[in-house]
Amino acid sequence: MDSYSFLSSTQNPKIRSASALRDAKARKQQGLFLIDGRDLTERAILGGQELSQIFVKDDEESLRELHSLREKFASRLVSCECYRVAPEAMQKLQYGDRDLGIITVAKIADTQLSTFADRVQARLVGRPALKHANPCYLVLDRMEKPGNLGAALRTADGAGVAGVVLADPICDLWNPNAVRSSLGALFTVPIAVSSEEEIQAYFRKAGIQIFTARVEGAVPYTSANFCRSHAIVIGNEASGLQHRWIAPDVQAIAIPMSGAVDSLNASVSTAILLYESKRQNTVNC
Amino acid sequence: MDSYSFLSSTQNPKIRSASALRDAKARKQQGLFLIDGRDLTERAILGGQELSQIFVKDDEESLRELHSLREKFASRLVSCECYRVAPEAMQKLQYGDRDLGIITVAKIADTQLSTFADRVQARLVGRPALKHANPCYLVLDRMEKPGNLGAALRTADGAGVAGVVLADPICDLWNPNAVRSSLGALFTVPIAVSSEEEIQAYFRKAGIQIFTARVEGAVPYTSANFCRSHAIVIGNEASGLQHRWIAPDVQAIAIPMSGAVDSLNASVSTAILLYESKRQNTVNC
Repeated sequence: MDSYSFLSSTQNPKIRSASALRDAKARKQQGLFLIDGRDLTERAILGGQELSQIFVKDDEESLRELHSLREKFASRLVSCECYRVAPEAMQKLQYGDRDLGIITVAKIADTQLSTFADRVQARLVGRPALKHANPCYLVLDRMEKPGNLGAALRTADGAGVAGVVLADPICDLWNPNAVRSSLGALFTVPIAVSSEEEIQAYFRKAGIQIFTARVEGAVPYTSANFCRSHAIVIGNEASGLQHRWIAPDVQAIAIPMSGAVDSLNASVSTAILLYESKRQNTVNC
Repeated sequence: MDSYSFLSSTQNPKIRSASALRDAKARKQQGLFLIDGRDLTERAILGGQELSQIFVKDDEESLRELHSLREKFASRLVSCECYRVAPEAMQKLQYGDRDLGIITVAKIADTQLSTFADRVQARLVGRPALKHANPCYLVLDRMEKPGNLGAALRTADGAGVAGVVLADPICDLWNPNAVRSSLGALFTVPIAVSSEEEIQAYFRKAGIQIFTARVEGAVPYTSANFCRSHAIVIGNEASGLQHRWIAPDVQAIAIPMSGAVDSLNASVSTAILLYESKRQNTVNC
């Protein structure tokens, strides 16, 4: 346990380089992102996420946590460097005052649309419970807030979607807040990032029916037929879908609103639609 | 428009007294709470909320906004005092840098359980769309974050619940952040605040079936029979329901989780269950 290199200075290049990963630009340059805390790090390992560095705070509890992780996942952590870090330097790494003892640097995974189908298939190997006759895809259009993105991924994981596609996202998928609020779903659900145009073409070619969630949608979502391969598109939190995703073969569905408020938030709409798809596929199809 | 009293000092007693309402203690003492911005103020008026003061920033746009509100709702604003406020004093009133031009002080409404049934009935007068053969109630147990509370109220309004009951809430219903994130649902949905024990007794006496949302619930929520008067209980965001709300006649229902993450967030669970109740009552009952 004491064989890790010790980093004491906030100016250490490794600390500075990792700390920079709180910003999207550095993540893009380095191809790396941050995972805060032991629990999320474990979920990342379980999700097959490649880790490159683990920084552990130089106190007994944190070192014990890292030790247990390394015992549990010895073979998967062979090429991951571990550093014992002085408390002041650890403070520079952590987000605000979230003192979690362990901060991990991981490699940004592939999110190309061209490899999406393969990644969706690869995930199903050995997981019969996730195989569906009528797979459901979630599309998040121009998602803006990392916390909402993470929450949507968490819900998508729960609902058992085949994969999530981000269309022209405004926020960065690898933002530590998205990672955190996904509770690790970001490591398990296949994700692609692309443009609206390419995604529409992709689904069309694959014979996947596109549904858009619109307040003014013609069909209530409970009348939509989810007993086929389908994608559900949720719009930007503030402005919705506006004039995007309109085509003769795209079906607009609405969630009925009974009260005085005229819309639901994006995360709530996502949950209602994904779980109705799941319900139909459990009960009806 | 220019006849409003002008308040220029941040030390003016009216400014100080209203500004104190950002804190729960002052809200309790004064029996008042804050509504930020013109839009929410209009929703409050439409919801029948009694307003006592409106503070408007001393600039043309804000004064125009107030003027249009007063024209539109002249009779309802007769006893509401309006003050024109210097920008520096307005800054003291507003939340952080949310410069909305209008801040309203309103009277805390009745949330007693003893008057809840009457308030639920009163709301239905002239609103046939809200009358249901099998009314649904939402119970939020020990809700902790004002933003989550507001979001749940917004969803409850959309799903057309008969009323919302807060069991031993940890956060304050009248927190400006709860008001804001409810998008005004707080003014339209009947709300009661009480203890778990009293609420259970209340529902039992009224013949309302209680369902609890539990990860380990015996019955999947899609098999629950919502074709009767019912209450759906959602637990604290962090710790769930723990050992609360357990009784032979209380039915525990679960939302199936397909992926790696083991639970959904409280706001998402609320939405899925309320909209399944609504769906059953639209399609099945």
